[in-house]
Amino acid sequence: MSNTYEAFRRRAAEITHLRSILQLLSWDQETMMAELGATHRASQVSTLAVIHHQRLVDPAYGDLISRLESRLGELDPWGQASVREARRQYDKATKVPESLVRELAETTALAYEAWVKARSESDFPAFAPWLKKILKLRRNEAECLKRPDQTLYEALLDEYEPGMTEATLDSLFSGIQPELTSLVDRITSSGRQPRPLPPGPFPAAAQETLGREILTAMGFDWKAGRLDTSPHPFCTGLSPRDVRITTRYSTTEIIKALFGMIHECGHGLYEQGLDASAYGLPACEAISLGLHESQSRLWENQIGRSRSFWEYWFPRLRRAFSPRFDDFSLDDFVFSVNTVRPSPIRTEADEVTYGLHVILRYQLEKALINEEVDVSELDQVWNDRMWQYLRYVPANSAEGVLQDTHWSQGLFGYFPTYLLGNLYAAQIFDQAKQSISGLDQAISAGNLLSLREWLREQIHVHGKTLTADEVIEAVTGRQLSADPFLDYLDTKFGDLYGI
Amino acid sequence: MSNTYEAFRRRAAEITHLRSILQLLSWDQETMMAELGATHRASQVSTLAVIHHQRLVDPAYGDLISRLESRLGELDPWGQASVREARRQYDKATKVPESLVRELAETTALAYEAWVKARSESDFPAFAPWLKKILKLRRNEAECLKRPDQTLYEALLDEYEPGMTEATLDSLFSGIQPELTSLVDRITSSGRQPRPLPPGPFPAAAQETLGREILTAMGFDWKAGRLDTSPHPFCTGLSPRDVRITTRYSTTEIIKALFGMIHECGHGLYEQGLDASAYGLPACEAISLGLHESQSRLWENQIGRSRSFWEYWFPRLRRAFSPRFDDFSLDDFVFSVNTVRPSPIRTEADEVTYGLHVILRYQLEKALINEEVDVSELDQVWNDRMWQYLRYVPANSAEGVLQDTHWSQGLFGYFPTYLLGNLYAAQIFDQAKQSISGLDQAISAGNLLSLREWLREQIHVHGKTLTADEVIEAVTGRQLSADPFLDYLDTKFGDLYGI
Repeated sequence: MSNTYEAFRRRAAEITHLRSILQLLSWDQETMMAELGATHRASQVSTLAVIHHQRLVDPAYGDLISRLESRLGELDPWGQASVREARRQYDKATKVPESLVRELAETTALAYEAWVKARSESDFPAFAPWLKKILKLRRNEAECLKRPDQTLYEALLDEYEPGMTEATLDSLFSGIQPELTSLVDRITSSGRQPRPLPPGPFPAAAQETLGREILTAMGFDWKAGRLDTSPHPFCTGLSPRDVRITTRYSTTEIIKALFGMIHECGHGLYEQGLDASAYGLPACEAISLGLHESQSRLWENQIGRSRSFWEYWFPRLRRAFSPRFDDFSLDDFVFSVNTVRPSPIRTEADEVTYGLHVILRYQLEKALINEEVDVSELDQVWNDRMWQYLRYVPANSAEGVLQDTHWSQGLFGYFPTYLLGNLYAAQIFDQAKQSISGLDQAISAGNLLSLREWLREQIHVHGKTLTADEVIEAVTGRQLSADPFLDYLDTKFGDLYGI
Repeated sequence: MSNTYEAFRRRAAEITHLRSILQLLSWDQETMMAELGATHRASQVSTLAVIHHQRLVDPAYGDLISRLESRLGELDPWGQASVREARRQYDKATKVPESLVRELAETTALAYEAWVKARSESDFPAFAPWLKKILKLRRNEAECLKRPDQTLYEALLDEYEPGMTEATLDSLFSGIQPELTSLVDRITSSGRQPRPLPPGPFPAAAQETLGREILTAMGFDWKAGRLDTSPHPFCTGLSPRDVRITTRYSTTEIIKALFGMIHECGHGLYEQGLDASAYGLPACEAISLGLHESQSRLWENQIGRSRSFWEYWFPRLRRAFSPRFDDFSLDDFVFSVNTVRPSPIRTEADEVTYGLHVILRYQLEKALINEEVDVSELDQVWNDRMWQYLRYVPANSAEGVLQDTHWSQGLFGYFPTYLLGNLYAAQIFDQAKQSISGLDQAISAGNLLSLREWLREQIHVHGKTLTADEVIEAVTGRQLSADPFLDYLDTKFGDLYGI
């Protein structure tokens, strides 16, 4: 048994190392690589991706997984979770015929180009045939992947949120939508809106300095990570001891980079919090995209958009960008960074309307996969539902159905993890406030380390040895619910908007 | 035939890509990686190095090489050179038994630690047993590698300077040594010495700005490369379109970083000058370490330490570091950056004494490999010869035989390439002055692009399709000779020291 596990562990570690290196190649390309390096880099990535895939689908690896599965009880929790995760990855990599994998890769590459063009011309009919083709291929893929107890959509969802079901999402999201729409209505009819933030200029260097101070306060370990700039902010954990986050500075908008840094640092703390001694095991990873997102959202919203947080940081922000905020009070500023206003673009949405954007996408992509909505009517359904949920009608397809790249990349089942992140975050943070004595005062005093420690011990360090359900149950004592999220929004925006 | 060549080309490209990725991992570790990332990075590198090695020694690859060798005439020059280079790499990787490779890796890892300690305590006897062991292993390796026409030392030399012979080195170096020693004597007895350079402070940011201006003038393509800082300056070509150089700034010594940047940029221009469309072929590489070094030395010494160069750049240097050089004339400065003074440490040596340091090491390492000198007497032989060649007696082993890391790493045959670089540089630059009309005036006017273009067309773009002998013959019309190097030093230092 120990020999079998040792052989499994060695192969799994090689696969982990190769994936880490692929991540480094990608990070380097986004942050460091010389402009003309792209073509040769693509060849390097392609060579390594093929090798990574070969190792992953090696029948000898599959055989080791099977042998360990038959004696799972003899393994410790890390071993058990690693075998379970290895099986998930192995099946995903082997159950889909190579011809389908190639067709999906080729189609999404072309579809991405088509989407870029269609969006720039706001021409949904030009993109529709690509979307139809991708849907067909992804349905075929889901047929290959799905377990007997899964729906087609769940087979796709499983890649991002293992174990999540349509029934759970339907139940959570259908309860949330009317509540959020009602909150939007009440906010809109309150007639109140905060002052717009000043237009800058905000020197990038000062943004970086302040951002680094905040990240340090959050407990980001600079000996085990770094911060750089890239066109699109992201976080990548090359290992728990080498976690890289990026941001992008705008000299006219102060909060984008700041909240972006806090958000990515939330992801980064999860990666740094994984058990470094388990690096190489398939279980040494975040549980799911939703839980990963919960960490970034918790830090960005529950902390970063709270009055307590800015009690400490607003004077520092004011000094750093003097005199831009000289006539802003703390309350002015906190209200401004919590502006709620229906708008067409998901990535620019506030905390209240964001969930409605996601629910709309979830419902539509599920209907597309289940062939309940036809692609030809998607544009119209989108706009109708935008009005129904958000009281907003997109001016054109570019700010409607064409705004996100996900579907052009074949990413179905990904969107719901964004809202799940918000739900997990609210429920976890509710518990944190109960479990960490004096948390609010600590935050007001700029001390964020107790929260990081608690999240690390409760969630990060366990990797995938717990499932999403298990960790939520273990941390908060109950199943995932929309109530903490809705209560949080009601209280916060009720206070801010006086409703 | 075309199928065989295509299969060879594909495998060779994979090996190239994997080596590029290994270089990126190393560059990242030196410049970017978080401090605590080292352990996991070592695992990642180890996994990839094993895969690279497996691909390189794959018998199917060897078979393709053999099949192409039997029909070499049907290939174009790139194909022929690639097969020749692939054979060299394949033999090097397959002819040495794995047990010996492992023993060498383990021994040099431990020997490096022992050398660090021995040097810090200036204790040569503590390091001597390690050196003996490494010599024995490297002799065994050379026995495996050597072709019938090669000596043991040549088998080792071949890794760095393909085709070079002991006879050639002996003939070149034995002619150089008395000339250099005599020049040192004449300089010393001239009684003249330049003013010391001011001690700064020289802000790192200003050094970087000026350095980047110089590199831009040299024609370094920033769209195909970058400059960063690292503890030890180096240049790595991840591909001809992604070339990375590093430097290190000292706020008390102005010329270290500046000349270091020029030196590494010389390497970088070679890498950027390779034919990018040939990337992936084994022939798309610099010809030899000596020729690589010739490019860095030519830019650093023939250009960077010339009066013409500083006619343009000295006013800029003066402005950048005002008022440090306000009382330096151009002639003062040029004399100062060309100070000749016997000193114990090779890496800090001037252009005249540098060659003597290298000749001493060449003679001793050849004698060690040929068992003509015993390790136990090496310390003494070193010091005797230092006096004979350089009129300097090291105060202790740390500034004598223990100063360089090379032998602790098993690098025998590497040292001569440093001096070969100087010889190639002098002979090539002599030709450049004849071939490029108005070169000296162009340099004085800050225009260095004509030289870069000429070097690119004459040398860089050909990769390994020419051997070192062939390229020197093609570019300069004659075989490598020490005369241009000795003439260059005689003229330059004769003028400076009035001798």
